[in-house]
Amino acid sequence: MPTTNIPKLEDLRIDDERLWASLMELATIGATPKGGVRRLALTDLDRQGRDLVIGWARAAGMTVTVDKIGNVFMRRAGRDNALPPVVTGSHIDTQPTGGKFDGNYGVLAGLEVVRTLNDHGVETEAPIEVVFWTNEEGTRFVPVMMGSGVFAKAFSLEHAYAAADDEGKTVKGELERIGYLGDQEPGEHPVGAYFEAHIEQGPVLEDHGKTIGVVTGVLGIRWYDCTVTGMEAHAGPTPMALRRDALQVAARLMQEVVACALRHQPHGRGTVGMVDVRPNSRNVIPGSVRFSIDLRNASDELCEAMDADIRGVADRLTAETGLPIRIEQVSAYPAQAFHADCVDAVARAAEGLGYSSMPVVSGAGHDAVYMARLAPTGMIFIPCRDGISHNEIEDAKPEHVAAGCNVLLHAMIERAGVAGQ
Amino acid sequence: MPTTNIPKLEDLRIDDERLWASLMELATIGATPKGGVRRLALTDLDRQGRDLVIGWARAAGMTVTVDKIGNVFMRRAGRDNALPPVVTGSHIDTQPTGGKFDGNYGVLAGLEVVRTLNDHGVETEAPIEVVFWTNEEGTRFVPVMMGSGVFAKAFSLEHAYAAADDEGKTVKGELERIGYLGDQEPGEHPVGAYFEAHIEQGPVLEDHGKTIGVVTGVLGIRWYDCTVTGMEAHAGPTPMALRRDALQVAARLMQEVVACALRHQPHGRGTVGMVDVRPNSRNVIPGSVRFSIDLRNASDELCEAMDADIRGVADRLTAETGLPIRIEQVSAYPAQAFHADCVDAVARAAEGLGYSSMPVVSGAGHDAVYMARLAPTGMIFIPCRDGISHNEIEDAKPEHVAAGCNVLLHAMIERAGVAGQ
Repeated sequence: MPTTNIPKLEDLRIDDERLWASLMELATIGATPKGGVRRLALTDLDRQGRDLVIGWARAAGMTVTVDKIGNVFMRRAGRDNALPPVVTGSHIDTQPTGGKFDGNYGVLAGLEVVRTLNDHGVETEAPIEVVFWTNEEGTRFVPVMMGSGVFAKAFSLEHAYAAADDEGKTVKGELERIGYLGDQEPGEHPVGAYFEAHIEQGPVLEDHGKTIGVVTGVLGIRWYDCTVTGMEAHAGPTPMALRRDALQVAARLMQEVVACALRHQPHGRGTVGMVDVRPNSRNVIPGSVRFSIDLRNASDELCEAMDADIRGVADRLTAETGLPIRIEQVSAYPAQAFHADCVDAVARAAEGLGYSSMPVVSGAGHDAVYMARLAPTGMIFIPCRDGISHNEIEDAKPEHVAAGCNVLLHAMIERAGVAGQ
Repeated sequence: MPTTNIPKLEDLRIDDERLWASLMELATIGATPKGGVRRLALTDLDRQGRDLVIGWARAAGMTVTVDKIGNVFMRRAGRDNALPPVVTGSHIDTQPTGGKFDGNYGVLAGLEVVRTLNDHGVETEAPIEVVFWTNEEGTRFVPVMMGSGVFAKAFSLEHAYAAADDEGKTVKGELERIGYLGDQEPGEHPVGAYFEAHIEQGPVLEDHGKTIGVVTGVLGIRWYDCTVTGMEAHAGPTPMALRRDALQVAARLMQEVVACALRHQPHGRGTVGMVDVRPNSRNVIPGSVRFSIDLRNASDELCEAMDADIRGVADRLTAETGLPIRIEQVSAYPAQAFHADCVDAVARAAEGLGYSSMPVVSGAGHDAVYMARLAPTGMIFIPCRDGISHNEIEDAKPEHVAAGCNVLLHAMIERAGVAGQ
């Protein structure tokens, strides 16, 4: 593979068809009749997927290490192997009725970067690594983002090991069973920088007609349970003026969750997803209503402001109606800004390649969120059809799949450096 | 029992303590630890209750007939027994966790009227009858108001006979088993007029500080299932502007159900009691929401106007939001106005007795609703504590219990006539 094939680095392009073919081949493992993939973490199918990807990596000349939580690092040596590697990757486990692209794309895009560098004999200064993290989806074992979470010491290895599925099978047992209980201490693997390519899982890029999302960070999340208490009464004999209808007050507060998000644009999001009405009978005025609130924003300060906003609204509703409202926070995930150098590297790569792009924030969690605690991190989003993911009909256009991988290639080259450039 | 004890009919009063004692004694049959009663229709406990009441009636000189659906008519002869009887009554079956007063009060108030007439040797022109109707509550066997419904030919005897409880026991079988399968054809029993005393089961009288509710009729009811269809999406990656959140539109329509009722006062009522959110997940924007609507008003025309109102609001919401809303009527019960003569008789009796009173409409169904299809009918409401019924804590004040019975006494005397008066 003569280097004379590439007079200029900026003309380097990945092999669109090879990347697509690898994605489709990996998607055959756990393929569902509706065109999706069911490949739950640490199942036999996960093992088959892992084996396939590692086989491809070895064929590309990479060396492989596995850590104690089953994260797999596939390494292409650089000129100076004392430098920490520039790492990319994602996950290959899927939702129970998942798609072909979520996670899998980020891993195979990383492999395609290496294959492209190999094709053209490009030697990077720093090593390049491709990683896939164990159990990102969290549907068989909680918590989600388990492999990267252990790696970033968000929780302990023992905590992760003890997690059990519905049948009582543990993470540690299943890692052993499928042969992916490695010996490297999680987190001891050096990371110089981290990039992750991923489908957007939302509708913003499609709506704006953009090819590349330059991800500037991940929204912080606050989860609450909210309970409105009224007085259960018979719908017939109770006139309107004498009611204490918990659902009517809850309905107003549900709308205020959205109003609160709209008061905190551009990134504020507010969702009521779950509602439990008691006694939930057609002719009984609801005595209590419990519902979830999901608030998100781009910084912890903004999340805090939304928290204060919705609590103030609830207090005013109680003062007005006399119905007590309890708002209890059940979880919180901090906002995570990505590193300016990595964000800029992604933006520059997109611009240099002539792709339309826009800055976006990720509303959902990714392994990159944990990696951002350890090293300069950036993400690349590509559009997915109708913003749909976690669904067998999840889809992405081949040209977007290729574009995101080209951006990844150039961002990583910039970060890793190329000898003599 | 010399008639000289009562120089004037208007001074006749029932025996407060005897009525109260009878209520408390009947309440021991099926008494619950929390002070309520569980005496489901056609159980052994129902038989015991029936036997007790019939024993009292016989002791008061009454004759008893039972019809084919187990309705029991207890008759005190009049001077002219060719006249159709003036009938009062209610039911003695209870809710699974019911109270002492619902239904039972109306039956024992009727018995107390007869006992009072006996005490003072008053002979009415028309006979007086006290009835208890089978299975008013409808919790063991549907439909509700079964005995009066068969009597009024709202549905057939065969339909009622075939109704089965959770264990597959039928109404006919249980009537036979407890010895209350009578031989009179339901509906063939003559009724000259019908009165029913009942606890209000709502908060209006208590709120107005009134002793007697002069019931002018029963609200018509329309039940609907309403479905709002949006687009299920991940709460994280989906910005506010790109959502089709079914719950947010549903919440507005839920409030419009109340607003619609407020636009149709004084009697309009609107309730959303039951809500089903799909997929009902904390971090998923609801894709569809199904909820019940219960609309009530004092005439079928007003119910129709509320129907058109809420459908118009739904159409405007769809035009504004783009989210389809389906409103499907699932049942309708016509409004029933009571007979002016009977309503006036109740009002006159309350006034003559010096009780505070007000006209009210019943929001809930009663046996009187079916009887109103057959004969001039009126109802008397007394307050119940906090408007609560269908609950073991159901309670009524002794002075209200007595007052309602005195009103019943005088309304029935007026209607039945007294020889020589």
